[in-house]
Amino acid sequence: MKEAGAESRIAIIGLGLMGGSLALALRAASWRGGITGIARSRETLDAALAADAIDVASDELAAAREADIIVLAAPVRTILEQIPLVGELAGDGALLLDMGSTKRAVVEAMDRLPTRLSAVGGHPMCGKETSGFASADGALYRDKLFILAPTARTTPAALAAAQSLAEIAGARVKVMDAARHDEIVAAVSHLPYVVASALVTTVADWAGEDDEVWRIAASGFRDTSRLAASDVTMMLDILLTNSENVADLLRRYSRALADLADAIYDEREELLRERLEAAAARRREEQAAGMARRG
Amino acid sequence: MKEAGAESRIAIIGLGLMGGSLALALRAASWRGGITGIARSRETLDAALAADAIDVASDELAAAREADIIVLAAPVRTILEQIPLVGELAGDGALLLDMGSTKRAVVEAMDRLPTRLSAVGGHPMCGKETSGFASADGALYRDKLFILAPTARTTPAALAAAQSLAEIAGARVKVMDAARHDEIVAAVSHLPYVVASALVTTVADWAGEDDEVWRIAASGFRDTSRLAASDVTMMLDILLTNSENVADLLRRYSRALADLADAIYDEREELLRERLEAAAARRREEQAAGMARRG
Repeated sequence: MKEAGAESRIAIIGLGLMGGSLALALRAASWRGGITGIARSRETLDAALAADAIDVASDELAAAREADIIVLAAPVRTILEQIPLVGELAGDGALLLDMGSTKRAVVEAMDRLPTRLSAVGGHPMCGKETSGFASADGALYRDKLFILAPTARTTPAALAAAQSLAEIAGARVKVMDAARHDEIVAAVSHLPYVVASALVTTVADWAGEDDEVWRIAASGFRDTSRLAASDVTMMLDILLTNSENVADLLRRYSRALADLADAIYDEREELLRERLEAAAARRREEQAAGMARRG
Repeated sequence: MKEAGAESRIAIIGLGLMGGSLALALRAASWRGGITGIARSRETLDAALAADAIDVASDELAAAREADIIVLAAPVRTILEQIPLVGELAGDGALLLDMGSTKRAVVEAMDRLPTRLSAVGGHPMCGKETSGFASADGALYRDKLFILAPTARTTPAALAAAQSLAEIAGARVKVMDAARHDEIVAAVSHLPYVVASALVTTVADWAGEDDEVWRIAASGFRDTSRLAASDVTMMLDILLTNSENVADLLRRYSRALADLADAIYDEREELLRERLEAAAARRREEQAAGMARRG
């Protein structure tokens, strides 16, 4: 395999928030290989060219043929469709790296790639509630965690190249098993999304046509509901490729919520205080331990 | 009744985040009457004196005897205990204003005050996940909504004086019926708190001793769980003086969550997309309409 490094020719498939931000970050870090951007929309390609994020624009996967590194930056189920197609057209020794938000299904698909290729699953732990190239930001990955999940096609050299790419974009790398990754993000990312979405639905249904309710909502509501505005296509792919873990966490969450609700209805003050204090202490502890730094 | 204005002598009972911030805000606005601070803890009183937030410090409610305006700034159930006591010792024509987070029980208690006093229920819509005088901030009320709830003891002059006080502290005033206030804050403030607390409990119980889970949590988890760190004594008083509204909203929320969970388990993709899109659209709409400005 040709060694991948900052001279490698890179193709990024998908130029939304994640792929667009990666292109901008590589450019800002003076990436020495060419950057090919592949997207379906002409508008996106033109915007990426205009921002000097990419050298070559194409709406064809085949434009990735000459690349040393091919980054898959679409929603997860699109990545799953693209893996075998890219596997056929990629040149010998090319490295595939994805940036999808769940990893088990992606790693399974990468395991089936031809042995002439290498592949690593990836998930940068960052996001915004806006999407598309217009929201792309070369600083998006800076100091964020970039999880790498090994596949049957992950050689030590492939892992090193993927790590180097993530670090050039400013991220900190953590290597983690795909199944383990998916259960952790179900707890700290997918569950909070469903919780936030149900909150907005509840308040919207309850408020009906009454706009005053929203005018009174302050920072507490804003923060708790923020994730509900996430890109739905991306989130749908996440929920449906991690549904067992999400279902398990949602069952646990419903029980925790019902316990609090019962304690409130029954005015079991000491029990309620104990539960709320335990959650408050834990949340303050994690904040102090630096959860805030890693956002 | 003596007209209350910026020359009025004011007594603030409770010098935590809310009362302490009010004292600092009045001082910064060059309040011309004296400011008496009343708190149980000597440490709090000393800190408020050292910060020049108050002119006179006392640990006795009786120190409010000479005040033209008496502000009750403790958690709600403490305010409920204090109202009749302060009602006995306050001078003729004095105005009582509280800053508790629920209003129906407070207004009912104020309705029973002697007719020689006037009283207005108040709720500044702001907060932090830290409490105590150490967290007090003279800018806390700036541009925030300060809801005033009329009582049987609210004369036009009393309402004007309460409004003037809130505005001197930098807030925008909205007059609202106490029952209406309590049902709206159940939706936009108390429900989000319970939702956030149950989220932290769920993840803590699921993670057990495994700290890696918290290290991977990013900004999405941080924001959705932020309210869980709120002061528990304050929140317990809120939940237990607004339990019917909170119980109603929690029932609605549990149903909305179960609907999403079912759609995920059953992979009913179109239904799931429809629900998530409706919530995302609503959240983006409210963000654009300026929910963000009012935090």
